[in-house]
Amino acid sequence: MTAGGEFERIARYFAPLAAGFTGALGLTDDAALLDPGPGRELVVSTDAQVADVHFFGGADPALIAAKILRSSVSDLAAMGAEPLAYTLATFWTDAVDSAWLARFSSGLAREQAALGINLAGGDTVRTAGPLSFSVTVFGSVPKGQAIRRAGAQVGDLVAVTGTIGDAWLGYRLLSDPALINAWGLSEWDAADLTERYWRPSPRCDTLARLRGEASAAVDISDGLIADLGHIAQTSGVEIVLDAAAIPLSSAARRPVAGFSLADLVTGGDDYEIALTISPQKAAMLDEAARASGVPITIVGRCTAGAGVRMRDRAGNSLPIGQAGFRHF
Amino acid sequence: MTAGGEFERIARYFAPLAAGFTGALGLTDDAALLDPGPGRELVVSTDAQVADVHFFGGADPALIAAKILRSSVSDLAAMGAEPLAYTLATFWTDAVDSAWLARFSSGLAREQAALGINLAGGDTVRTAGPLSFSVTVFGSVPKGQAIRRAGAQVGDLVAVTGTIGDAWLGYRLLSDPALINAWGLSEWDAADLTERYWRPSPRCDTLARLRGEASAAVDISDGLIADLGHIAQTSGVEIVLDAAAIPLSSAARRPVAGFSLADLVTGGDDYEIALTISPQKAAMLDEAARASGVPITIVGRCTAGAGVRMRDRAGNSLPIGQAGFRHF
Repeated sequence: MTAGGEFERIARYFAPLAAGFTGALGLTDDAALLDPGPGRELVVSTDAQVADVHFFGGADPALIAAKILRSSVSDLAAMGAEPLAYTLATFWTDAVDSAWLARFSSGLAREQAALGINLAGGDTVRTAGPLSFSVTVFGSVPKGQAIRRAGAQVGDLVAVTGTIGDAWLGYRLLSDPALINAWGLSEWDAADLTERYWRPSPRCDTLARLRGEASAAVDISDGLIADLGHIAQTSGVEIVLDAAAIPLSSAARRPVAGFSLADLVTGGDDYEIALTISPQKAAMLDEAARASGVPITIVGRCTAGAGVRMRDRAGNSLPIGQAGFRHF
Repeated sequence: MTAGGEFERIARYFAPLAAGFTGALGLTDDAALLDPGPGRELVVSTDAQVADVHFFGGADPALIAAKILRSSVSDLAAMGAEPLAYTLATFWTDAVDSAWLARFSSGLAREQAALGINLAGGDTVRTAGPLSFSVTVFGSVPKGQAIRRAGAQVGDLVAVTGTIGDAWLGYRLLSDPALINAWGLSEWDAADLTERYWRPSPRCDTLARLRGEASAAVDISDGLIADLGHIAQTSGVEIVLDAAAIPLSSAARRPVAGFSLADLVTGGDDYEIALTISPQKAAMLDEAARASGVPITIVGRCTAGAGVRMRDRAGNSLPIGQAGFRHF
């Protein structure tokens, strides 16, 4: 089964995804037009994702669509930006046929609607290598109000949205389904965890409410420890985490031998947001959490120093191990 | 020889490329900030490029850098936009080492300076497949003044910048160096042609001068005939080309058996601009050409109908053959 020529593919599977965004010009021009609006500036992030590194290449194309788009939009959330549009570069393999494309594009349509974002343009080419994507996402913020990584101050609180480690557990279950029984999980728990892997929830609404309040933020893609490390480094602070405070789902709290807290805080793929905020503004966290319906938990403090440490209740440093996924 | 970890690579080879653009935030944040300026909007285009499809993968990395960046910026030229910034997603193979990266990034630095554009962000991942890139370019135009593909009117003139077919000839020479002798080319001619392949010249300055004047424009990536086909289709006109008027370099005009005019107009990789303009505004073409130092040649006319045709002096339609490179 073939999937038509390049232009037919674009017209059939991708132009409908751009119908809601006038700046996409129907995907018929050399470029798209983006206007952040008066008093606002654009926030732009580009991700590259490769089958069997960033997602399971043989999975349902609708899930692949969800993961690549949602994980990219998470970068906008970290800056406090509201989603606007995205472009998509796709490197297709010969295995990509009409049925695959139909499922992939309907997955994108569903995620776009959920995220409030539209396709603005892109490019499709064929590759002899693994199925790959590059997503560039565009959001907007009032000018000068993007949340940066470099603003954390000694004394600031450290907080995270949602729960940590579920996506990594989901990844483990997808890699080895026998773990569902080994870890004594219900089918529902297992489905929740794999959903956390495939369909992360960009916290755009929550972080937009913290613009001007949070001193720094980062999205958790490589693991809580590694990504907090970026805040620590760019801000020139040390971050000390209280291990007992790290928010875990009921599935992640099960006392099993297969994983440890160190795995959960270094596993990655959470796409939650880690942020810092002055203790005087702690009430803003409750307000943003309540208004957006996303829990925010205080997990630590910025101190004078460098790097990221995790302590137990007695104040002893806990081992963390390899801090985050690295490609090289 | 290894090339360091992901973050070291970014700091060493890519952060210097972003130093001239404050919105890049030193490549230390989740996203970059882009502001088109008052009264302007952003023009955005995303390309995907794969080794040994879009460029020779084993070539000098500085040439690869030139080709991927220049061909992407050409999309901005087609819209009449002035270059602002770009993001770069790279899919590295294991063959990419420090020496390769140093050469690639110094190539990007040189091209950035020539094009007036800076790196704003990106992502680097490893792939088991061919070396690949996705470049997203950003430019700006006064709001509402981007040149579109859909504006050509029956009666409009059709014009092209520069000369047509040289990049395709360069590609042939790079594929088979024996052709240099077979075609009776001097070393200088051959070097010019391969330079046209590797370092196309985005016509941003020329087209910016034709904003509000040209009725439609497209950049020639898949071949003159195929890309004019986009104008014909979106504008609802037929385009009739005068074969004798198509501007060719001295090398392309040599009477050799190895290629025909049909090859030159379907070969692609020109990254010249094809445009349409009302005959009343023909003098604007001379003015834009003189002011930007880029020849513009009238090559045809828009008529009532559909598609693209090429005629000889006697008015007979000439065979064109396969119209443009297609990936699928």
